[in-house]
Amino acid sequence: MLYFIGLGLGDCKDITVKGLEIVRQCSRVYLEAYTSILTVGKDALEEYYGRELLLADRDMVEQQADEILKGADVSDVAFLVVGDPFGATTHSDLILRALNAGIQYRVIHNASIMNAVGCCGLQLYNFGETVSIVFWTDTWRPESFYDKIKKNRDMGLHTLCLLDIKVKEQSMENLMRGRKIYEPPRYMTVAQAAEQLLEILQNRRDRGEELAMTQDTVCVGLARVGAENQTIRSGTLQELASSDLGGPLHSMIISGDLHPLEVDMLKLFSGPEGLKTLKMTDSSTYVS
Amino acid sequence: MLYFIGLGLGDCKDITVKGLEIVRQCSRVYLEAYTSILTVGKDALEEYYGRELLLADRDMVEQQADEILKGADVSDVAFLVVGDPFGATTHSDLILRALNAGIQYRVIHNASIMNAVGCCGLQLYNFGETVSIVFWTDTWRPESFYDKIKKNRDMGLHTLCLLDIKVKEQSMENLMRGRKIYEPPRYMTVAQAAEQLLEILQNRRDRGEELAMTQDTVCVGLARVGAENQTIRSGTLQELASSDLGGPLHSMIISGDLHPLEVDMLKLFSGPEGLKTLKMTDSSTYVS
Repeated sequence: MLYFIGLGLGDCKDITVKGLEIVRQCSRVYLEAYTSILTVGKDALEEYYGRELLLADRDMVEQQADEILKGADVSDVAFLVVGDPFGATTHSDLILRALNAGIQYRVIHNASIMNAVGCCGLQLYNFGETVSIVFWTDTWRPESFYDKIKKNRDMGLHTLCLLDIKVKEQSMENLMRGRKIYEPPRYMTVAQAAEQLLEILQNRRDRGEELAMTQDTVCVGLARVGAENQTIRSGTLQELASSDLGGPLHSMIISGDLHPLEVDMLKLFSGPEGLKTLKMTDSSTYVS
Repeated sequence: MLYFIGLGLGDCKDITVKGLEIVRQCSRVYLEAYTSILTVGKDALEEYYGRELLLADRDMVEQQADEILKGADVSDVAFLVVGDPFGATTHSDLILRALNAGIQYRVIHNASIMNAVGCCGLQLYNFGETVSIVFWTDTWRPESFYDKIKKNRDMGLHTLCLLDIKVKEQSMENLMRGRKIYEPPRYMTVAQAAEQLLEILQNRRDRGEELAMTQDTVCVGLARVGAENQTIRSGTLQELASSDLGGPLHSMIISGDLHPLEVDMLKLFSGPEGLKTLKMTDSSTYVS
């Protein structure tokens, strides 16, 4: 049996009881290590589980899947994923390969940013399509996520923005020379994401477009959701552009129409001046 | 401290290790009992946790919140919620009351249907706004969820449909006579939801509207997600209208544009004739 086990978002003890029992009984345990990280490292997990963990990076999962699947028809192998196994990324390819090789699989779910983001008080029902905001480079500055935010805002919906993660990346020089030397991991901050959005707004303003949002639109920055030192900050896009929410991982929400109860929750996470750009449109709706 | 603890979706052992430790150390433990149920009952939870659970129904949470909060400033109280505490419903009101009374709170996240639905192989990124499908009565037959499905489909997005739950409902007669006698719980099945959708499609067709979907649109029915006997069925809306996925809880997905990898996953859950209404629009997109 191949088990896909979600680890949740915080630390060692966010695994489910069921997941922990399975980890401790499997013959091999892989830790997927390219789409996210826990706030604790591999060592802490190994100590708590009492098991050696084999790091499965993107190369391994995509090119050496056979190694992961080896023997899983006669013994149990676990594949650990931060969050939910089907949260931020799916592992459909590995499932299909397993089934092709006659190996059954089972999923042990857990919290992921896709549902835990509800902790800021915005209703999950009121979210539209999730978007990813990627690191811009000198030559690649995509704005497509802004258009999706616009569609969500037009329908009064909130937008969860997942912020870029760069793990095991090669510099252009190392890539061209075929050297497998990797850059340190990078994580986009809420401030960086807000900066990029402000720049897009300026570009669109210059082109005379009607804007989906402004620097005064209320947004929420989230850092290390689920961890002891989780931080949530609500305020205008402009405010978040100069915020410092500490270490990774960060994500951000662009608000749509807000219910008064959602506003009351956001007040818990705003500064004294926060949310003053909100306007009531009717007795049950605020917008910014 | 007031702890909001998610129980996940399956059985006793889907609680996180952290959540279980907290449950066992709290002075009182409430089980929220009106928005969902685990596939195991209260007795099974009590036996596994080794703790008495106090059922918190809607009346209690809304009208007797003080009782839940009593003493939580000096000792620990746990409030257990099936799924994630901020998944299908938020408990913002209880949080705000707690903070007003000088009581701190903490959230222990878990899987909810909002992210676990990814187990069918459809990418969570490609979902639009979630909708709720309610039981129709003779006099109340709302169609608003259809319009949201249409908006999602227009953008190529999938729609998660949460199906109605009726717990602790009074009959009209008992309600009018002020008798607190409650009907047995009811859970909408995938077949019932599909039937209602087919009827809406007929209504709209009669009015000459352009349809968002047809009886041939590929949908996914899910039952008891996360449990040992979880069932997933993919097929046309018409097929699902005559499906029997067994006991509660059920939910349904109306597909949008499908990536080939999503189609490969859905094939795992379809009958031999399944998915034959899918058409390729370009090399990376299927629609139905």
